[in-house]
Amino acid sequence: MNNPLRDPRDRRLPLIAGPSSMVMFGVTGDLAKKKLLPAIYDLTNRSLLPPSFGLVGFGRRDWSHEDFADYVEEAVKEGARTGFRQSVMDQLRGGLRFVTGEFDETAAYERLTDVVKELDETRGTGGNHAFYLSIPPKAFPQVCEQLANSGLNASENGSWRRVVIEKPFGHNLESARELNDVVEKVFDEEDVFRIDHYLGKETVQNLLAFRFANQMFEPVWNANYVDHVQITMAEDIGIGSRAGYYDGIGTARDVIQNHLLQLFALTAMEEPISFEAADLRAEKEKVLAAVELPGDLATSTARGQYVGGWQGGQWVKGYLEEEGIPEDSETETFAAMQLNVNTRRWAGVPFYLRAGKRLGRRVTEIAVVFKSAPFLPFNDTDTKDLGQNSIVIRIQPDEGVTMRFGSKVPGSQMEVRDVSMDFVYGSSFTEESPEAYERLILDMLLGDPPLFPRQREVELSWAILDPVTEFWAESMPPSPYRAGTWGPQTAHDMLARDGRHWRRP
Amino acid sequence: MNNPLRDPRDRRLPLIAGPSSMVMFGVTGDLAKKKLLPAIYDLTNRSLLPPSFGLVGFGRRDWSHEDFADYVEEAVKEGARTGFRQSVMDQLRGGLRFVTGEFDETAAYERLTDVVKELDETRGTGGNHAFYLSIPPKAFPQVCEQLANSGLNASENGSWRRVVIEKPFGHNLESARELNDVVEKVFDEEDVFRIDHYLGKETVQNLLAFRFANQMFEPVWNANYVDHVQITMAEDIGIGSRAGYYDGIGTARDVIQNHLLQLFALTAMEEPISFEAADLRAEKEKVLAAVELPGDLATSTARGQYVGGWQGGQWVKGYLEEEGIPEDSETETFAAMQLNVNTRRWAGVPFYLRAGKRLGRRVTEIAVVFKSAPFLPFNDTDTKDLGQNSIVIRIQPDEGVTMRFGSKVPGSQMEVRDVSMDFVYGSSFTEESPEAYERLILDMLLGDPPLFPRQREVELSWAILDPVTEFWAESMPPSPYRAGTWGPQTAHDMLARDGRHWRRP
Repeated sequence: MNNPLRDPRDRRLPLIAGPSSMVMFGVTGDLAKKKLLPAIYDLTNRSLLPPSFGLVGFGRRDWSHEDFADYVEEAVKEGARTGFRQSVMDQLRGGLRFVTGEFDETAAYERLTDVVKELDETRGTGGNHAFYLSIPPKAFPQVCEQLANSGLNASENGSWRRVVIEKPFGHNLESARELNDVVEKVFDEEDVFRIDHYLGKETVQNLLAFRFANQMFEPVWNANYVDHVQITMAEDIGIGSRAGYYDGIGTARDVIQNHLLQLFALTAMEEPISFEAADLRAEKEKVLAAVELPGDLATSTARGQYVGGWQGGQWVKGYLEEEGIPEDSETETFAAMQLNVNTRRWAGVPFYLRAGKRLGRRVTEIAVVFKSAPFLPFNDTDTKDLGQNSIVIRIQPDEGVTMRFGSKVPGSQMEVRDVSMDFVYGSSFTEESPEAYERLILDMLLGDPPLFPRQREVELSWAILDPVTEFWAESMPPSPYRAGTWGPQTAHDMLARDGRHWRRP
Repeated sequence: MNNPLRDPRDRRLPLIAGPSSMVMFGVTGDLAKKKLLPAIYDLTNRSLLPPSFGLVGFGRRDWSHEDFADYVEEAVKEGARTGFRQSVMDQLRGGLRFVTGEFDETAAYERLTDVVKELDETRGTGGNHAFYLSIPPKAFPQVCEQLANSGLNASENGSWRRVVIEKPFGHNLESARELNDVVEKVFDEEDVFRIDHYLGKETVQNLLAFRFANQMFEPVWNANYVDHVQITMAEDIGIGSRAGYYDGIGTARDVIQNHLLQLFALTAMEEPISFEAADLRAEKEKVLAAVELPGDLATSTARGQYVGGWQGGQWVKGYLEEEGIPEDSETETFAAMQLNVNTRRWAGVPFYLRAGKRLGRRVTEIAVVFKSAPFLPFNDTDTKDLGQNSIVIRIQPDEGVTMRFGSKVPGSQMEVRDVSMDFVYGSSFTEESPEAYERLILDMLLGDPPLFPRQREVELSWAILDPVTEFWAESMPPSPYRAGTWGPQTAHDMLARDGRHWRRP
């Protein structure tokens, strides 16, 4: 990670991307409009992109550069995190280009090559170009092939070419490998940046600081003291307009394979020797490889599909009634599973993962639940209201940390009850959190890879998930649960069988 | 601890004192007026004293029972924690009596005997009587002798007689033993209740709950993880009207021997097998007996005396200018010392105690400061602003717990900075905290002794303190410090020598 603009005397000076441009495929899509284009502006506004930065849109629209610039400006005005300044926008506009074309249209890539060359000459982007594929995976082969044919993938004279791909990275181990073969035929592994935007979130990175910058927590972060861990990603929304993508994919593939297993890995891994990409990935891969599913998937997993119910004072329809969903769909909108971890640190400590749509409320959190104290010098009734200690790391919303522990109830008796101690990320710092995409796009341009999963991690994740989804497809259709509740009865049974229960976040 | 009014099915029902009375010596003093009489009312108001409870004032004033009752009512109206209700006051008034007399006047104790008998007959107090000696220690021998001569100390037919004494329990080991001999000639050890009102405070008891009702903290509560512990009792006030008592006594004897060493014992002791008095005392005595002073008292203690300075925007005078203080007084108003603890749990972990008047602000707290993490996978500059983790238990004001730990600063870099997580006792419970004296008087009437130090603890505390005060008297006059600061330079040097520093509370 050598960045000439970095002052080696203080690593905490913001790193500024060097001369470069980004070519965005799928620039008229939702993600680009809502997240990527605003993130580019925000980075520009924060002076983290070079003034000469180029951004090339590639798409079917018959747009001039000017049309595209207007489109970007509109997206920025709607979606940017930082304040709008015309001077910044004008600077950015100077590097905006648009190339009209189909993904498989050779001539379009020739035009793209010309534009990229023109940027190198007029904006001094120095041959450094990133290709952001914000497109469906089925279009990957076409785009990759064309990039290769046109030579756009090839860097020269010490410049770089990188490709950014978004999940889904396949839908099982086999397809993930096929997809990767397509990409890695054209780009070197080290030039492939897989985006799991969860890893760009501040709180996810804070998990590393929380665990490894402190002395207080690591000593109890193991099977001696931890009873189990719960990782929850609950959405209150339904399928919305994603029917076309979602049906047939389901919750496990949509978010467990990537987001939840990444959170799992960061929670369960050993301390890396540094946060350099290789060291960090080595630990994540180790712990992913140590995962073992319980023998009986029928009782150690749960699968659900929401039916109509009341949510937020409103009646919402069931999954099968959503537009575009076949009425016999067996796609799950709720998934839960137990993972065991074959390491000395975690032997015997189940990790429970759950995710779903139309749940009680929107929340993503990691709850480390401790064993009960081995001995209590109290009378039984004194501790009647005492639960297990827990450390809850909230990813969203209200990012922060909550610790739950027992405290004496005021009064003349020794009575102990659970209380909470809170750290709210947003109110503890004056600094504002950048959006995940700002962080990730900047890191990619800097060639700083720790926050991007490597293909090996993707494959290990699928290797964990595949037996579950195969079992489900064969013999476990989703159980219904009412919208606005916390999932199907089977999810509750799954923990109740172990004498445990899901936290009510 | 057998209380017939307790429902054995639920220990958490408030325990109600059985039929009894209390004879209060020194009833016209400050403590009685501000704390003890209001506490008696509050207990009555909370229905924790029996309706027939008797309270006998003993003093020089030529008061009728009615005069005394008016005095009590006035004190209650001024000082009670719970709302004033005339019906409750009238119930209490029914049991109020006053006996006029000198401490050494035999006839007065005959009158007292009559009053006590009358209460047994008319109020059914059943021979259960407590004698609360809210008087200077020099008056103890007289009062004890007279109680013995009149036979008031002797219980019969299963009833009880108890004596309550307030600190100071002597001014060194020898005088503490003499004082105790006087009291225990007349009362059995188990009938002597020594009040350290600090032990009646909710947060002090919460220290037991915090340490022993939880799984999360005890594993790091030892020399493997703790760097040192700081126990602070800072007052912002000066000597006030206590010159007569304070001069010649000083801070170490006034508060370290009792309050701070009790806090130390509760922080450092091993887990007791129960909170019954014998088990709790056994642990406190063990850890007090394990204390060793560092070899060089000149560098491991600090002694100070305030000089005039600005405090709270006001110029306040120095100790030697206070009324009633000899201008060559060498009494300390600030004391600090290091204790080492010869146990496996604490070997090598210094406990720093400090207390003083006219310090920066009023605060009592216990700060457990952890070692730095043994390894940081961060770059040096990333953790520039990272201190040591700590758990701070605030006794007063704002009772609660604060944990300090490192968290990532929002932004594109991994930068770690200290943040705090707070638990505020008062805002986490709807229950109101009773006053320390309510708790302690009730416990005494219930015969529930865990919160009262035994003579052995008092002696162990003096054994710790005596070498220090003797060294000070011989060769270490107090160093001056400005009112409103955090003590003399020697206190700072004392920790700086070990590469540490006092917390700024």
